[in-house]
Amino acid sequence: MAPFIRKVNYYECDAMGVVHHSNYLRYMEEARIDRLARLGYDFASLASEGIVSPVVSLECRYLKPVGISDTLEIDVRVESLTAFKLTLSYVMTSRGTKVFEGSSVHCFLKDGRPLEIASRFPLLANTLTR
Amino acid sequence: MAPFIRKVNYYECDAMGVVHHSNYLRYMEEARIDRLARLGYDFASLASEGIVSPVVSLECRYLKPVGISDTLEIDVRVESLTAFKLTLSYVMTSRGTKVFEGSSVHCFLKDGRPLEIASRFPLLANTLTR
Amino acid sequence: MAPFIRKVNYYECDAMGVVHHSNYLRYMEEARIDRLARLGYDFASLASEGIVSPVVSLECRYLKPVGISDTLEIDVRVESLTAFKLTLSYVMTSRGTKVFEGSSVHCFLKDGRPLEIASRFPLLANTLTR
Amino acid sequence: MAPFIRKVNYYECDAMGVVHHSNYLRYMEEARIDRLARLGYDFASLASEGIVSPVVSLECRYLKPVGISDTLEIDVRVESLTAFKLTLSYVMTSRGTKVFEGSSVHCFLKDGRPLEIASRFPLLANTLTR
Repeated sequence: MAPFIRKVNYYECDAMGVVHHSNYLRYMEEARIDRLARLGYDFASLASEGIVSPVVSLECRYLKPVGISDTLEIDVRVESLTAFKLTLSYVMTSRGTKVFEGSSVHCFLKDGRPLEIASRFPLLANTLTR
Repeated sequence: MAPFIRKVNYYECDAMGVVHHSNYLRYMEEARIDRLARLGYDFASLASEGIVSPVVSLECRYLKPVGISDTLEIDVRVESLTAFKLTLSYVMTSRGTKVFEGSSVHCFLKDGRPLEIASRFPLLANTLTR
Repeated sequence: MAPFIRKVNYYECDAMGVVHHSNYLRYMEEARIDRLARLGYDFASLASEGIVSPVVSLECRYLKPVGISDTLEIDVRVESLTAFKLTLSYVMTSRGTKVFEGSSVHCFLKDGRPLEIASRFPLLANTLTR
Repeated sequence: MAPFIRKVNYYECDAMGVVHHSNYLRYMEEARIDRLARLGYDFASLASEGIVSPVVSLECRYLKPVGISDTLEIDVRVESLTAFKLTLSYVMTSRGTKVFEGSSVHCFLKDGRPLEIASRFPLLANTLTR
């Protein structure tokens, strides 16, 4: 699937003139929501059903800084899938260079109770990368 | 009343090495919530009653930049009060110099309907500066 | 000129489920930088020349809340122009309804000294709306 | 050493009414800068020497959500120290319950070149937890 394209905003850069490390989590979220929407799982529709998807844990590796004139290509993949946990991996590149790698683990809750992922989101299994 | 004291955080500074202008609205909110809490109007208690207070409009004048080593003293005052509108004014100083002036206009909603301010928040009238 | 289009991000919404009022200043900045770039005044190029453009003051009027499923159309205009001050106005609409109006006043500094706007940015005068 | 105390701000909460997961990285940064300052390594002084400390990688485990009425106690420890890498660990508790665990790896750069940590920051070795 085509990567999610995201231009860096001025207000996302810190005093070193590069994107503050906390903002990569926001880029990960944007790319994740976009990826799920393209599979047919629209965030706003899910929310109206009472479904939310908290972040359980995450990891980030900052490889190269990016700045105000840069654009990121963000590739999101389904890394693993169990009954109640979805693991996504992220690779961000800018001008052909890998600048960031990360992963996030999510559960899904419907009205506050754990939701079995495969039954509600069958298409996720198809996208498993291995 | 004593000013609200707020140390600048690194991640609030932009590529010019100074606090990004959008963050002053967050400082205004922190100081406003603190001010109302000290009058006995605690934000979380109000929220649990179904009361919220959207910003209707605001104005900012950025007088001097502040950076990572700076601490702000924020003075919040009740500028005017009508049946449904509260206007607050803010002066921020750092190292004895005025760095920012602003104002914000708020209404109060209970369960989505306009709330008459004086009847629910009688102490606000006492703090009118003029 | 075509408006700047901006999808709302989940992380920009607050506990009321709507865009936090501070984030409109960031949308204004994105739309302003995009507008100047389309006139040929690219932010990163200006920065490399030592030119920055601090916000002197601004005003916001919040007309309707917008939420996670919304997209904003942001129209930026040159409201007035003097030797050293540029005033821009912003109208944001969503689903055909005006949701926000604002304005911002800027100066330009080159290596920390005031820059005469018309001589460095001649095309701005052409875009004056009145 | 006493934990770093941090009240949650309204604007840090998302549409689920809890602190957005990206903001924990900002709390980690605040607690880290405070911890180093209390050892005598003040961020602004370091910056004026040309020393910066980028984040190389990090991990976060989100155990319990926290909301607008909550205050965090953040404990920062030196987990390991090599010639060029510092690993810090973070535990955040609220009302006596552990809500977050994380770690971050940092290098130090002086004028863009790697800095041997032990020679410039000798007191860090004393604080090793194991």
